[in-house]
Amino acid sequence: MIKTAILGLGNVGKGVASVLTGNRAEIARKVPGGLELGYILDIRDFPDSPFADKVTHDYEEILNDPEVKVICETMGGKEPAFTFSRRALEKGISVCTSNKELVEARGRELLEIAREHNCSYLFEASVGGGIPLIAPLLNCLEQERISSIFGILNGTTNYILTKMDRFGAGYEEVLKEAQELGYAERNPEADVEGYDTGRKIAILSSLVSGKTVRFEDTYTEGITKICPADFVYAEEHHYCIKLLGISSRMEDESFNVLTAPYLVPQGHPLYAVSDVFNGIFIHGNMVDDLMFYGRGAGTLPTGSAVVADMIQAALSIGKTIPIRWDKERVDLKPHSELVSTFFVRTDLSEQEAVRKAFDGKIADDWSLPAFPDEYAFLTGPMSEAEFAALAEKLKFKTRIRVLC
Amino acid sequence: MIKTAILGLGNVGKGVASVLTGNRAEIARKVPGGLELGYILDIRDFPDSPFADKVTHDYEEILNDPEVKVICETMGGKEPAFTFSRRALEKGISVCTSNKELVEARGRELLEIAREHNCSYLFEASVGGGIPLIAPLLNCLEQERISSIFGILNGTTNYILTKMDRFGAGYEEVLKEAQELGYAERNPEADVEGYDTGRKIAILSSLVSGKTVRFEDTYTEGITKICPADFVYAEEHHYCIKLLGISSRMEDESFNVLTAPYLVPQGHPLYAVSDVFNGIFIHGNMVDDLMFYGRGAGTLPTGSAVVADMIQAALSIGKTIPIRWDKERVDLKPHSELVSTFFVRTDLSEQEAVRKAFDGKIADDWSLPAFPDEYAFLTGPMSEAEFAALAEKLKFKTRIRVLC
Repeated sequence: MIKTAILGLGNVGKGVASVLTGNRAEIARKVPGGLELGYILDIRDFPDSPFADKVTHDYEEILNDPEVKVICETMGGKEPAFTFSRRALEKGISVCTSNKELVEARGRELLEIAREHNCSYLFEASVGGGIPLIAPLLNCLEQERISSIFGILNGTTNYILTKMDRFGAGYEEVLKEAQELGYAERNPEADVEGYDTGRKIAILSSLVSGKTVRFEDTYTEGITKICPADFVYAEEHHYCIKLLGISSRMEDESFNVLTAPYLVPQGHPLYAVSDVFNGIFIHGNMVDDLMFYGRGAGTLPTGSAVVADMIQAALSIGKTIPIRWDKERVDLKPHSELVSTFFVRTDLSEQEAVRKAFDGKIADDWSLPAFPDEYAFLTGPMSEAEFAALAEKLKFKTRIRVLC
Repeated sequence: MIKTAILGLGNVGKGVASVLTGNRAEIARKVPGGLELGYILDIRDFPDSPFADKVTHDYEEILNDPEVKVICETMGGKEPAFTFSRRALEKGISVCTSNKELVEARGRELLEIAREHNCSYLFEASVGGGIPLIAPLLNCLEQERISSIFGILNGTTNYILTKMDRFGAGYEEVLKEAQELGYAERNPEADVEGYDTGRKIAILSSLVSGKTVRFEDTYTEGITKICPADFVYAEEHHYCIKLLGISSRMEDESFNVLTAPYLVPQGHPLYAVSDVFNGIFIHGNMVDDLMFYGRGAGTLPTGSAVVADMIQAALSIGKTIPIRWDKERVDLKPHSELVSTFFVRTDLSEQEAVRKAFDGKIADDWSLPAFPDEYAFLTGPMSEAEFAALAEKLKFKTRIRVLC
């Protein structure tokens, strides 16, 4: 039996508690004696919770219990999550987390501290919610040279885009509905501006490269400018619109990392990833294409991924589960060099100016009878810098990249 | 450095050799000194192969080299693969394989022998080709109560069904083309009759239950009776046709396991799994739906999965990587009790008789103007026994189950 603690009884913490107690028998098949929930650290009390008797407000009580070998940090945010995680690791207690903000910002340091104290820092649940992704990436694909990893990494925005697509609704309207349903936070900025996806693709890029990619160094574009008409054009041409985090490794070992809305073609497996689901595509030089699909958020799925890590940590007491993540920064290619094709919508009055500026660079006319006052087109492949230069004096209603 | 050997230089064996040599640097990051290819056992010589100098015809040479710690068995078939695997394991040499026929029939015995000799028997590549599936199932989802696992497990038949769907071609014609392209074997029985899928879903059922499911005890139906008209009906009603292996766990711990063609609705992630790709769906009580997608066959993808196992085995020398698979047989529900809805096509002349027999059990009329001489319908949910009883005196052109 291994004694555990949950730091922070929010949504994910509650999920961890539910999995630990609800699937006790399954866990005990793998960890002799099972995982016992010893403590829940929170500033609040939960008198009506079945876990009320586990709640403590004093972290020292947990740290000073020599039976506690594995804890989960489901507090979110950088502090006090970092300090609490560091202190546990320094005592040889393994820490498992869903906290992508902390992992992105200071995960590497925490891995180093874990290594120094013969315990583990694990963060499967920080990317892709319940989807087994980081463990397969580290333990099933280490023989691969991974050239790209990209996908739908944020359930909230995928829910919003799916509803806009299906019901022709506007962004603000769907956001409000998502907030009422609890799918979007009251301050939705981290989701809708792409920061959450950006942090996750930064974490995945660091794991794939073995070096460090910081979110703040990558290009990030959210979904707030997507409008109902965009979906009409997309659908007519057999595409849907998804917010993607994309990381590509170049021949010279530099990386292209960005977050942006993309047109995804019908037939691509990501096309069918709807609602709050996530889908992550991986391309390896031997295995070719892979996709992992599942619930990217939610109390129980995310709690399940945290518990999966807790089991692995419990099976490795006294040892460190190795994760390669060096301090050295990855050589990031300037965003201006990224080559894409672009879907563009503009007023019909701009058509002549566009045709002149983009002479020979327009791959397809996407104009639709339903929008007689607009001119829409698809560019050929060009760099961001080239697109920006050609578009300099033009006014576009929409400019969305296209996944090839 | 760990010395290895490949038993059988067929397609998969060649893939293993390519991954071991082509991605030497990636492997050495995980296994100190890397995995050295010491021997290739085959009855043939390969004078023009870059691996010609590794070839031996004498298995004793490999077994008697004390440096060999991990081998892969890519011979296929039950014998001599079983005997060769057993002898290696008895010497404490871990064995990694893609041989689903052997794993299904005798994998449990080989796991037991491995346990007795402190080495491992691993078979990631036996199901889903290059897709990381068995390792995530065993190491990332052990906290889950898995209620079903199902999917497209055979690349050859999925290629055939995809081509029939896209080009309206007949089964025989597409099979011939697939054989010419090397996607189907000269004797395609194991693929097209569903035996290959059946073996794979039996293996997955054993892993999910921790007990034994034998292929021979499960219901298996192939794709040889699917005809171009079936695809027209399916498409018109927003379905496609896929050969699925399905394993469901009932409340009473009994299992329903079968292999059969199914109508898969548009919007279901398996709908988009085309050509030689595989997709495996898993439902857990906490994590909800998951899907794993990738190349279910092919030299390099399958070789990659074998090498992933070889790395894990190399990291666990002297220990057994545990896999729960008991001798006790799973309680299989009789196929007659399986509840499905059915798509049925019949001659128009049968319409009255059908309506009489299926009175109140027809959920939808699927007849199409393009087939004026036919009557087509969808039944409500009913057991196989009930369907068989109602259909007893009727003549059906097609009867395909529908995935709900």
